[in-house]
Amino acid sequence: MSKKIVLTGITPSGTPHLGNYVGAIKPAIEMSKSEDFDCLYFIADYHSLIKLWDKKLRQQYTHEIASTWLALGLDPNKTTFYRQSDIPEIMELNWILSTVASKGLLNRAHAYKALVDQNLAEENADPDKGITMGLFNYPILMAADILMFDADLVPVGKDQLQHIEIARDICNRFNHIYKTSTLKAPTWLTDEESQTILGLDGRKMSKSYDNTIPIFSAEKKLRKQVMKIITNSQLPEEKKDPSKCTVFAIHKSIANQSEIASLEQKYLEGGMGWGDAKQILFEKINEYLKDAREKYDFYFNNPKEVDDILKQGAEKARTIAKANLLKVKEVVGI
Amino acid sequence: MSKKIVLTGITPSGTPHLGNYVGAIKPAIEMSKSEDFDCLYFIADYHSLIKLWDKKLRQQYTHEIASTWLALGLDPNKTTFYRQSDIPEIMELNWILSTVASKGLLNRAHAYKALVDQNLAEENADPDKGITMGLFNYPILMAADILMFDADLVPVGKDQLQHIEIARDICNRFNHIYKTSTLKAPTWLTDEESQTILGLDGRKMSKSYDNTIPIFSAEKKLRKQVMKIITNSQLPEEKKDPSKCTVFAIHKSIANQSEIASLEQKYLEGGMGWGDAKQILFEKINEYLKDAREKYDFYFNNPKEVDDILKQGAEKARTIAKANLLKVKEVVGI
Repeated sequence: MSKKIVLTGITPSGTPHLGNYVGAIKPAIEMSKSEDFDCLYFIADYHSLIKLWDKKLRQQYTHEIASTWLALGLDPNKTTFYRQSDIPEIMELNWILSTVASKGLLNRAHAYKALVDQNLAEENADPDKGITMGLFNYPILMAADILMFDADLVPVGKDQLQHIEIARDICNRFNHIYKTSTLKAPTWLTDEESQTILGLDGRKMSKSYDNTIPIFSAEKKLRKQVMKIITNSQLPEEKKDPSKCTVFAIHKSIANQSEIASLEQKYLEGGMGWGDAKQILFEKINEYLKDAREKYDFYFNNPKEVDDILKQGAEKARTIAKANLLKVKEVVGI
Repeated sequence: MSKKIVLTGITPSGTPHLGNYVGAIKPAIEMSKSEDFDCLYFIADYHSLIKLWDKKLRQQYTHEIASTWLALGLDPNKTTFYRQSDIPEIMELNWILSTVASKGLLNRAHAYKALVDQNLAEENADPDKGITMGLFNYPILMAADILMFDADLVPVGKDQLQHIEIARDICNRFNHIYKTSTLKAPTWLTDEESQTILGLDGRKMSKSYDNTIPIFSAEKKLRKQVMKIITNSQLPEEKKDPSKCTVFAIHKSIANQSEIASLEQKYLEGGMGWGDAKQILFEKINEYLKDAREKYDFYFNNPKEVDDILKQGAEKARTIAKANLLKVKEVVGI
């Protein structure tokens, strides 16, 4: 039986944080080690143009993300790890797909509709105020990313399920219109076990809330950030509820069973101040990422090395993309 | 002073007809002979996907159009004559431009609005019924076609003026957002003298009305088509009004002054039946296109030759496109 093709894109629109690690990077790297899957992971730099109009930040995030994944154990020889913009075939497929995608399908995309609703709520005369065509077209490019490589499985969070549905719809419509079976409809893969980690303020850790703890920062800085986690005003002697504490929640995401149990006991017994709890969490994160941090520093300081790895990945990816685009062009008569 | 860059795209969505010749091909070929202009003419096969989902027809029209332009005197050594799909850089620029183009701008595009109005008139529940994203995105791809080559002048009919305005808007927005002057805003060029030729039924000759006379058909077939032109029911002996006659109008588009005067006299004097008038027109067209038809037959029967010419043109065009895309990518940090 042939391996299932798994595809994931990472948009370089922020510095990777612990939430990314626990929710996406860790499971993706585990998956890439399995013999059952053939994994394609890419940095979606062309997608980032939608939200980020800052050249320097885009380059910085791209380099940080690539360094992060490599440091955390992604093996570029066992996976295909590339930059989206190194595969221009995707942009050709993107146009071809747009000519079969119905506009109504895109009108119903959640991300677009949310912005329209916001404009309506603010009583803007134009419901499309501030919305670019990049944002409106985004699900088509995502379909191209997926269909370009015959991906079987696309790991996504619940908020991305609709994009896979849109990719399936466009795929089926293309095959129907051109009476072909050239494109392969993908399936989403949501990890029921997948964790969301809480941010400094107790909401979901997310760059949009500005409440993140970066995966890699120097020890001192990391400690400072952990100390910033918002807790309640209970005194050290009081017993504490672990289920209502962000420090405990983050610790739970990365510690092992006995470490979790030990911290839980300290909460329930009382006698531990928030500073001590945060120190335990800091030490845990620090220990957890120590080896990876050394690797990260290496990659971060050797951009040429990272670039070479991405280029080698792009070469592997382009071989597939070129062959598949050729088939698609043959079907449409281009 | 440097030459002005002129750019025109021809969508392969029908067999070239006399209306195309008089209104677009003839003036474009004349322009390409001037020392003042550097002309880029391309077959917009990626655009044709919007309206045409038939592989064979697309290939047929593409070949017919290329053969037609070459037969009518386009010198591929003096112009850059290429197929859009041979320049994948355009598709990358297309995406980049979409990320700065506001959706509101596209909402107001005439071609899209006309289809929405039609849906509303037919009381369709969905105003976007039957509208693809290719159609909605069309003006962005046209902007990419133009901006890719720093075109100064784009010859267009009045119905296309808005597309140039959209290209200018996207260009200025890109330059503004990225604080650059990388992209050059194009200007439209409408030929005040440009003629529209009437079709068999007296309406404007257009493939959408199915009233065209192809530029190149065998003599017999051409004669048959000319004989189909709709005229009024006046008898031969009656005096006729040249200003209200399609036969006269077509003849006027291609004949010289003395030929036109001679036919006009026959109308005003009376005594000439419609069959005779049509015969005069047929002979005029036939004589007018005789040499070109031989060349056309050559190119039409030598697709390899035509393909080689287009590939050479693509090589010239790609050199420019690659250099310009590199500049744009540098600006956005890709």
